[in-house]
Amino acid sequence: MQIAVLLFDKLNALDAVGPYEVLRAMPGAGMCFVAADPGPKRTECGALSLVADHALHAVPRPDVVVVPGGSGELDARADGRVIEWLQRAHEASQWTTSVCTGSLLLGAAGLLRGKRATSHWTALDALRELGADAVSDERVVFDGKIVTAAGVSAGIDMALMLATELAGAEVAQAIQLDLEYDPQPPHDTGSTAKAPPALAEQIRAASRFARAT
Amino acid sequence: MQIAVLLFDKLNALDAVGPYEVLRAMPGAGMCFVAADPGPKRTECGALSLVADHALHAVPRPDVVVVPGGSGELDARADGRVIEWLQRAHEASQWTTSVCTGSLLLGAAGLLRGKRATSHWTALDALRELGADAVSDERVVFDGKIVTAAGVSAGIDMALMLATELAGAEVAQAIQLDLEYDPQPPHDTGSTAKAPPALAEQIRAASRFARAT
Repeated sequence: MQIAVLLFDKLNALDAVGPYEVLRAMPGAGMCFVAADPGPKRTECGALSLVADHALHAVPRPDVVVVPGGSGELDARADGRVIEWLQRAHEASQWTTSVCTGSLLLGAAGLLRGKRATSHWTALDALRELGADAVSDERVVFDGKIVTAAGVSAGIDMALMLATELAGAEVAQAIQLDLEYDPQPPHDTGSTAKAPPALAEQIRAASRFARAT
Repeated sequence: MQIAVLLFDKLNALDAVGPYEVLRAMPGAGMCFVAADPGPKRTECGALSLVADHALHAVPRPDVVVVPGGSGELDARADGRVIEWLQRAHEASQWTTSVCTGSLLLGAAGLLRGKRATSHWTALDALRELGADAVSDERVVFDGKIVTAAGVSAGIDMALMLATELAGAEVAQAIQLDLEYDPQPPHDTGSTAKAPPALAEQIRAASRFARAT
Protein backbone atom coordinates (compact mmCIF):
# COMPACT_ATOMS: atom_id res chain seq x y z
CA MET A 1 0.00 0.00 0.00
CA GLN A 2 1.58 3.25 -1.15
CA ILE A 3 0.90 6.32 0.99
CA ALA A 4 2.07 9.66 -0.39
CA VAL A 5 2.41 12.76 1.77
CA LEU A 6 2.58 16.02 -0.19
CA LEU A 7 5.21 18.52 0.92
CA PHE A 8 5.67 22.16 -0.09
CA ASP A 9 7.50 25.18 1.31
CA LYS A 10 5.97 26.71 4.45
CA LEU A 11 3.98 23.63 5.30
CA ASN A 12 2.97 22.92 8.87
CA ALA A 13 5.27 20.12 10.04
CA LEU A 14 2.87 18.48 12.48
CA ASP A 15 0.11 18.33 9.83
CA ALA A 16 2.38 15.98 7.88
CA VAL A 17 4.22 14.17 10.65
CA GLY A 18 1.20 13.28 12.81
CA PRO A 19 -0.42 11.11 10.11
CA TYR A 20 2.99 9.81 8.97
CA GLU A 21 3.80 8.43 12.40
CA VAL A 22 0.45 6.62 12.56
CA LEU A 23 0.10 5.35 9.00
CA ARG A 24 3.68 4.09 8.62
CA ALA A 25 3.04 1.64 11.44
CA MET A 26 0.42 -0.27 9.47
CA PRO A 27 1.70 -3.61 8.13
CA GLY A 28 2.48 -3.26 4.44
CA ALA A 29 2.42 0.53 4.44
CA GLY A 30 4.95 2.13 2.10
CA MET A 31 5.30 5.81 2.92
CA CYS A 32 6.73 8.38 0.57
CA PHE A 33 7.05 12.15 0.69
CA VAL A 34 6.48 13.93 -2.60
CA ALA A 35 6.77 17.49 -3.89
CA ALA A 36 6.60 19.34 -7.19
CA ASP A 37 10.36 19.82 -6.85
CA PRO A 38 11.97 17.17 -4.60
CA GLY A 39 14.31 18.22 -1.82
CA PRO A 40 14.10 19.97 1.53
CA LYS A 41 10.94 21.96 2.21
CA ARG A 42 11.08 24.60 4.92
CA THR A 43 8.30 24.40 7.44
CA GLU A 44 6.26 27.44 8.47
CA CYS A 45 8.68 29.24 10.79
CA GLY A 46 11.74 28.28 8.79
CA ALA A 47 13.68 26.44 11.49
CA LEU A 48 13.02 22.92 10.20
CA SER A 49 13.02 21.31 6.77
CA LEU A 50 11.29 18.07 5.82
CA VAL A 51 12.74 16.33 2.79
CA ALA A 52 10.59 15.18 -0.14
CA ASP A 53 12.50 12.31 -1.74
CA HIS A 54 10.24 12.00 -4.75
CA ALA A 55 8.84 14.20 -7.51
CA LEU A 56 5.09 14.17 -7.98
CA HIS A 57 5.36 12.50 -11.39
CA ALA A 58 7.28 9.60 -9.82
CA VAL A 59 4.30 8.74 -7.60
CA PRO A 60 1.28 9.11 -9.87
CA ARG A 61 -1.14 6.65 -8.28
CA PRO A 62 -0.71 6.31 -4.52
CA ASP A 63 -3.34 4.34 -2.63
CA VAL A 64 -3.59 7.05 0.01
CA VAL A 65 -2.93 10.77 -0.48
CA VAL A 66 -2.19 12.94 2.58
CA VAL A 67 -2.20 16.72 2.13
CA PRO A 68 -0.96 18.89 5.01
CA GLY A 69 -1.68 22.59 5.38
CA GLY A 70 0.35 25.57 6.42
CA SER A 71 0.86 29.11 5.23
CA GLY A 72 2.54 27.87 2.04
CA GLU A 73 -0.68 26.23 0.97
CA LEU A 74 -1.62 29.37 -0.99
CA ASP A 75 1.53 29.19 -3.14
CA ALA A 76 1.05 25.44 -3.55
CA ARG A 77 -2.48 26.12 -4.83
CA ALA A 78 -0.97 28.31 -7.55
CA ASP A 79 1.34 25.52 -8.77
CA GLY A 80 -0.37 23.75 -11.64
CA ARG A 81 1.78 20.67 -11.10
CA VAL A 82 0.38 20.24 -7.58
CA ILE A 83 -3.23 20.75 -8.65
CA GLU A 84 -2.92 18.39 -11.59
CA TRP A 85 -1.25 15.73 -9.46
CA LEU A 86 -4.00 15.97 -6.85
CA GLN A 87 -6.69 15.60 -9.51
CA ARG A 88 -5.07 12.58 -11.14
CA ALA A 89 -4.03 10.92 -7.89
CA HIS A 90 -7.56 11.31 -6.56
CA GLU A 91 -9.01 9.52 -9.59
CA ALA A 92 -7.15 6.35 -8.59
CA SER A 93 -6.76 6.70 -4.84
CA GLN A 94 -8.43 4.57 -2.23
CA TRP A 95 -8.45 7.52 0.19
CA THR A 96 -7.69 11.20 -0.38
CA THR A 97 -7.06 13.02 2.89
CA SER A 98 -6.06 16.38 4.28
CA VAL A 99 -5.08 17.96 7.58
CA CYS A 100 -5.77 21.56 8.57
CA THR A 101 -5.67 23.96 5.60
CA GLY A 102 -4.57 21.10 3.36
CA SER A 103 -8.29 20.87 2.58
CA LEU A 104 -8.00 24.20 0.74
CA LEU A 105 -5.61 22.49 -1.66
CA LEU A 106 -8.14 19.70 -2.22
CA GLY A 107 -10.77 22.39 -2.72
CA ALA A 108 -8.59 24.30 -5.20
CA ALA A 109 -8.22 21.07 -7.15
CA GLY A 110 -11.99 20.91 -7.40
CA LEU A 111 -12.28 17.79 -5.29
CA LEU A 112 -14.59 19.17 -2.60
CA ARG A 113 -17.51 20.59 -4.61
CA GLY A 114 -20.65 19.68 -2.71
CA LYS A 115 -18.66 17.52 -0.29
CA ARG A 116 -18.79 17.74 3.48
CA ALA A 117 -15.31 18.74 4.64
CA THR A 118 -13.42 20.58 7.36
CA SER A 119 -10.23 22.58 7.87
CA HIS A 120 -8.53 24.73 10.48
CA TRP A 121 -11.33 26.65 12.21
CA THR A 122 -10.08 30.00 10.85
CA ALA A 123 -10.27 28.64 7.28
CA LEU A 124 -13.85 27.42 7.10
CA ASP A 125 -15.06 30.42 5.10
CA ALA A 126 -12.22 29.94 2.64
CA LEU A 127 -13.16 26.27 2.38
CA ARG A 128 -16.78 27.21 1.64
CA GLU A 129 -15.64 29.56 -1.11
CA LEU A 130 -13.96 26.59 -2.78
CA GLY A 131 -17.30 24.83 -3.02
CA ALA A 132 -17.24 22.60 0.05
CA ASP A 133 -20.05 22.06 2.51
CA ALA A 134 -17.85 23.28 5.38
CA VAL A 135 -18.36 21.44 8.67
CA SER A 136 -17.44 23.36 11.81
CA ASP A 137 -18.23 20.90 14.57
CA GLU A 138 -16.57 17.64 13.55
CA ARG A 139 -12.88 16.96 14.08
CA VAL A 140 -12.61 14.46 11.23
CA VAL A 141 -15.06 14.40 8.32
CA PHE A 142 -15.53 11.43 5.99
CA ASP A 143 -17.37 11.99 2.69
CA GLY A 144 -16.97 9.03 0.36
CA LYS A 145 -13.25 8.46 -0.02
CA ILE A 146 -12.34 12.00 1.02
CA VAL A 147 -11.30 12.48 4.64
CA THR A 148 -10.54 15.96 5.98
CA ALA A 149 -9.25 16.76 9.46
CA ALA A 150 -9.55 19.98 11.45
CA GLY A 151 -6.49 21.97 12.57
CA VAL A 152 -2.98 20.55 12.93
CA SER A 153 -3.25 18.00 15.76
CA ALA A 154 -6.49 16.57 14.31
CA GLY A 155 -4.34 14.74 11.76
CA ILE A 156 -3.39 12.20 14.42
CA ASP A 157 -7.03 11.34 15.12
CA MET A 158 -7.75 11.26 11.38
CA ALA A 159 -4.89 8.86 10.72
CA LEU A 160 -5.95 6.52 13.53
CA MET A 161 -9.49 6.46 12.08
CA LEU A 162 -8.04 5.79 8.64
CA ALA A 163 -5.80 3.02 10.01
CA THR A 164 -8.93 1.48 11.52
CA GLU A 165 -10.56 1.44 8.07
CA LEU A 166 -7.45 0.21 6.26
CA ALA A 167 -6.00 -2.30 8.69
CA GLY A 168 -8.71 -2.98 11.25
CA ALA A 169 -9.41 -1.88 14.79
CA GLU A 170 -6.83 -4.09 16.45
CA VAL A 171 -3.98 -2.72 14.36
CA ALA A 172 -5.10 0.85 15.01
CA GLN A 173 -5.39 0.13 18.73
CA ALA A 174 -1.85 -1.25 18.78
CA ILE A 175 -0.54 1.82 16.95
CA GLN A 176 -2.31 4.07 19.46
CA LEU A 177 -0.69 2.21 22.35
CA ASP A 178 2.73 2.28 20.72
CA LEU A 179 2.43 6.05 20.23
CA GLU A 180 1.17 6.23 23.82
CA TYR A 181 -1.67 8.37 22.53
CA ASP A 182 -3.63 8.90 25.72
CA PRO A 183 -3.78 12.70 25.50
CA GLN A 184 -3.79 14.87 28.60
CA PRO A 185 -3.93 18.44 27.31
CA PRO A 186 -3.02 20.81 30.15
CA HIS A 187 -5.76 23.27 29.17
CA ASP A 188 -9.29 22.86 27.86
CA THR A 189 -9.02 25.35 25.03
CA GLY A 190 -8.50 23.09 22.04
CA SER A 191 -11.62 24.11 20.13
CA THR A 192 -13.63 27.27 19.65
CA ALA A 193 -16.50 25.59 21.49
CA LYS A 194 -14.32 25.36 24.61
CA ALA A 195 -11.94 28.33 24.48
CA PRO A 196 -12.85 31.82 25.70
CA PRO A 197 -14.26 33.81 22.73
CA ALA A 198 -11.63 36.53 23.23
CA LEU A 199 -8.86 33.98 22.70
CA ALA A 200 -10.43 32.78 19.47
CA GLU A 201 -10.92 36.36 18.29
CA GLN A 202 -7.25 37.12 18.92
CA ILE A 203 -6.15 34.15 16.79
CA ARG A 204 -8.70 34.85 14.08
CA ALA A 205 -7.57 38.49 13.81
CA ALA A 206 -3.96 37.39 13.36
CA SER A 207 -4.75 34.69 10.83
CA ARG A 208 -4.17 35.11 7.12
CA PHE A 209 -7.87 34.50 6.59
CA ALA A 210 -8.89 37.60 8.56
CA ARG A 211 -10.87 40.06 6.46
CA ALA A 212 -10.61 43.81 6.59
CA THR A 213 -13.91 45.09 7.97
CA MET B 1 14.90 32.36 23.97
CA GLN B 2 16.86 29.70 22.12
CA ILE B 3 15.25 26.25 21.89
CA ALA B 4 17.42 23.46 20.47
CA VAL B 5 15.95 20.18 19.25
CA LEU B 6 18.51 17.38 18.90
CA LEU B 7 18.30 15.27 15.76
CA PHE B 8 20.03 11.98 14.90
CA ASP B 9 19.53 9.20 12.38
CA LYS B 10 16.55 6.93 13.06
CA LEU B 11 14.83 9.38 15.35
CA ASN B 12 11.09 9.31 15.80
CA ALA B 13 9.76 12.27 13.80
CA LEU B 14 6.73 13.00 15.96
CA ASP B 15 8.86 13.05 19.12
CA ALA B 16 10.63 16.07 17.67
CA VAL B 17 7.87 17.74 15.67
CA GLY B 18 5.16 17.67 18.36
CA PRO B 19 7.14 19.90 20.77
CA TYR B 20 8.49 21.99 17.88
CA GLU B 21 5.02 22.92 16.69
CA VAL B 22 4.03 24.01 20.20
CA LEU B 23 7.18 25.76 21.38
CA ARG B 24 7.85 27.71 18.20
CA ALA B 25 4.54 29.52 18.69
CA MET B 26 5.71 31.18 21.91
CA PRO B 27 6.56 34.88 21.45
CA GLY B 28 10.33 35.28 21.29
CA ALA B 29 11.05 31.60 20.74
CA GLY B 30 13.97 30.90 18.44
CA MET B 31 13.94 27.28 17.35
CA CYS B 32 16.93 25.43 15.97
CA PHE B 33 17.59 21.84 15.03
CA VAL B 34 21.03 20.53 15.89
CA ALA B 35 23.01 17.36 15.27
CA ALA B 36 26.54 16.03 15.72
CA ASP B 37 26.84 16.25 11.95
CA PRO B 38 24.40 18.76 10.42
CA GLY B 39 22.26 17.74 7.46
CA PRO B 40 19.30 15.47 6.78
CA LYS B 41 18.55 12.84 9.41
CA ARG B 42 16.45 9.86 8.36
CA THR B 43 13.54 9.12 10.65
CA GLU B 44 12.81 5.63 11.94
CA CYS B 45 11.26 3.98 8.89
CA GLY B 46 13.50 5.81 6.43
CA ALA B 47 10.80 7.53 4.36
CA LEU B 48 11.29 11.00 5.80
CA SER B 49 14.31 13.13 6.68
CA LEU B 50 14.36 16.09 9.04
CA VAL B 51 17.18 18.54 8.47
CA ALA B 52 19.49 19.71 11.25
CA ASP B 53 20.77 23.12 10.16
CA HIS B 54 23.32 23.46 12.96
CA ALA B 55 26.20 21.50 14.43
CA LEU B 56 26.09 20.89 18.18
CA HIS B 57 29.13 23.11 18.79
CA ALA B 58 27.34 26.03 17.11
CA VAL B 59 24.57 25.94 19.75
CA PRO B 60 26.40 25.36 23.02
CA ARG B 61 24.02 27.05 25.49
CA PRO B 62 20.37 26.83 24.45
CA ASP B 63 17.77 27.94 26.97
CA VAL B 64 15.70 24.84 26.30
CA VAL B 65 16.97 21.45 25.16
CA VAL B 66 14.53 18.99 23.53
CA VAL B 67 15.69 15.41 23.01
CA PRO B 68 13.49 13.09 20.96
CA GLY B 69 13.71 9.31 20.98
CA GLY B 70 13.59 6.64 18.34
CA SER B 71 15.48 3.49 17.48
CA GLY B 72 18.61 5.52 16.63
CA GLU B 73 18.85 6.67 20.22
CA LEU B 74 21.20 3.77 20.95
CA ASP B 75 23.71 4.90 18.31
CA ALA B 76 23.35 8.50 19.45
CA ARG B 77 24.18 7.36 23.01
CA ALA B 78 27.46 5.97 21.68
CA ASP B 79 28.46 9.30 20.11
CA GLY B 80 30.65 11.17 22.57
CA ARG B 81 29.86 14.48 20.88
CA VAL B 82 26.16 14.05 21.67
CA ILE B 83 26.76 13.04 25.29
CA GLU B 84 29.22 15.87 25.90
CA TRP B 85 26.88 18.42 24.33
CA LEU B 86 23.98 17.24 26.49
CA GLN B 87 26.11 17.50 29.63
CA ARG B 88 27.36 21.00 28.85
CA ALA B 89 24.04 22.29 27.53
CA HIS B 90 22.30 21.02 30.64
CA GLU B 91 24.68 22.95 32.89
CA ALA B 92 23.40 26.22 31.42
CA SER B 93 19.86 25.35 30.31
CA GLN B 94 16.67 26.67 31.81
CA TRP B 95 14.89 23.42 30.90
CA THR B 96 16.26 20.10 29.68
CA THR B 97 13.52 17.94 28.19
CA SER B 98 12.96 14.66 26.42
CA VAL B 99 10.20 12.78 24.64
CA CYS B 100 9.82 9.00 24.55
CA THR B 101 13.18 7.18 24.58
CA GLY B 102 14.97 10.51 24.39
CA SER B 103 15.13 10.16 28.17
CA LEU B 104 17.58 7.27 27.68
CA LEU B 105 19.95 9.78 26.07
CA LEU B 106 19.59 12.08 29.07
CA GLY B 107 20.20 9.06 31.27
CA ALA B 108 23.28 8.02 29.31
CA ALA B 109 24.63 11.54 29.81
CA GLY B 110 24.28 11.00 33.55
CA LEU B 111 21.58 13.64 33.96
CA LEU B 112 18.91 11.43 35.49
CA ARG B 113 20.70 9.82 38.46
CA GLY B 114 18.20 9.79 41.29
CA LYS B 115 15.75 11.88 39.28
CA ARG B 116 12.11 11.03 38.69
CA ALA B 117 11.71 10.54 34.94
CA THR B 118 9.68 8.69 32.34
CA SER B 119 10.04 7.27 28.83
CA HIS B 120 8.15 5.09 26.38
CA TRP B 121 6.43 2.43 28.46
CA THR B 122 8.57 -0.35 26.95
CA ALA B 123 11.76 1.49 27.99
CA LEU B 124 11.17 2.02 31.71
CA ASP B 125 13.50 -0.82 32.74
CA ALA B 126 16.22 0.59 30.51
CA LEU B 127 15.63 4.01 32.05
CA ARG B 128 15.99 2.54 35.53
CA GLU B 129 19.28 0.91 34.56
CA LEU B 130 20.57 4.38 33.71
CA GLY B 131 19.99 5.50 37.27
CA ALA B 132 16.60 7.17 37.03
CA ASP B 133 13.68 6.77 39.40
CA ALA B 134 11.47 5.53 36.55
CA VAL B 135 7.85 6.68 36.75
CA SER B 136 5.29 4.50 34.99
CA ASP B 137 2.03 6.30 35.66
CA GLU B 138 2.65 9.93 34.75
CA ARG B 139 2.56 11.21 31.20
CA VAL B 140 4.88 14.15 31.85
CA VAL B 141 7.34 14.20 34.75
CA PHE B 142 8.95 17.36 36.12
CA ASP B 143 12.00 17.01 38.40
CA GLY B 144 13.76 20.31 38.89
CA LYS B 145 14.57 21.64 35.46
CA ILE B 146 14.35 18.23 33.81
CA VAL B 147 11.09 17.37 32.07
CA THR B 148 10.57 13.94 30.54
CA ALA B 149 7.54 12.84 28.54
CA ALA B 150 6.17 9.35 27.95
CA GLY B 151 5.91 7.82 24.46
CA VAL B 152 5.81 9.81 21.21
CA SER B 153 2.54 11.78 21.39
CA ALA B 154 3.19 12.79 25.02
CA GLY B 155 5.64 15.37 23.69
CA ILE B 156 2.71 17.59 22.70
CA ASP B 157 1.33 17.61 26.24
CA MET B 158 4.85 18.15 27.63
CA ALA B 159 5.45 21.13 25.36
CA LEU B 160 2.12 22.73 26.26
CA MET B 161 2.99 22.36 29.96
CA LEU B 162 6.42 23.84 29.28
CA ALA B 163 4.90 26.72 27.33
CA THR B 164 2.67 27.37 30.32
CA GLU B 165 5.78 27.65 32.52
CA LEU B 166 7.75 29.72 30.03
CA ALA B 167 5.14 32.04 28.58
CA GLY B 168 2.12 31.78 30.88
CA ALA B 169 -1.21 30.01 30.74
CA GLU B 170 -2.86 32.38 28.30
CA VAL B 171 -0.16 31.92 25.68
CA ALA B 172 -0.28 28.14 26.09
CA GLN B 173 -4.06 28.19 25.80
CA ALA B 174 -3.84 30.21 22.57
CA ILE B 175 -1.30 27.77 21.14
CA GLN B 176 -3.56 24.85 22.06
CA LEU B 177 -6.49 26.50 20.25
CA ASP B 178 -4.38 27.35 17.21
CA LEU B 179 -3.23 23.73 16.99
CA GLU B 180 -6.86 22.72 17.54
CA TYR B 181 -5.63 20.31 20.18
CA ASP B 182 -8.91 18.91 21.41
CA PRO B 183 -8.00 15.25 21.00
CA GLN B 184 -10.60 12.65 20.11
CA PRO B 185 -8.68 9.37 19.90
CA PRO B 186 -10.85 6.79 18.13
CA HIS B 187 -9.84 4.04 20.56
CA ASP B 188 -9.18 3.98 24.29
CA THR B 189 -5.92 2.07 24.13
CA GLY B 190 -3.36 4.84 24.53
CA SER B 191 -1.78 3.56 27.74
CA THR B 192 -1.02 0.20 29.26
CA ALA B 193 -3.55 1.00 31.99
CA LYS B 194 -6.29 1.12 29.36
CA ALA B 195 -5.25 -1.25 26.59
CA PRO B 196 -5.90 -5.01 26.69
CA PRO B 197 -2.86 -6.74 28.26
CA ALA B 198 -2.44 -8.95 25.19
CA LEU B 199 -2.00 -5.87 23.01
CA ALA B 200 0.69 -4.50 25.32
CA GLU B 201 2.42 -7.87 25.40
CA GLN B 202 2.51 -8.01 21.61
CA ILE B 203 4.17 -4.58 21.40
CA ARG B 204 6.57 -5.30 24.25
CA ALA B 205 7.68 -8.56 22.61
CA ALA B 206 8.45 -6.73 19.36
CA SER B 207 10.27 -3.86 21.03
CA ARG B 208 14.04 -3.56 21.07
CA PHE B 209 13.89 -3.60 24.85
CA ALA B 210 12.41 -7.11 24.97
CA ARG B 211 14.58 -9.53 26.94
CA ALA B 212 15.17 -13.14 26.12
CA THR B 213 13.58 -15.17 28.91
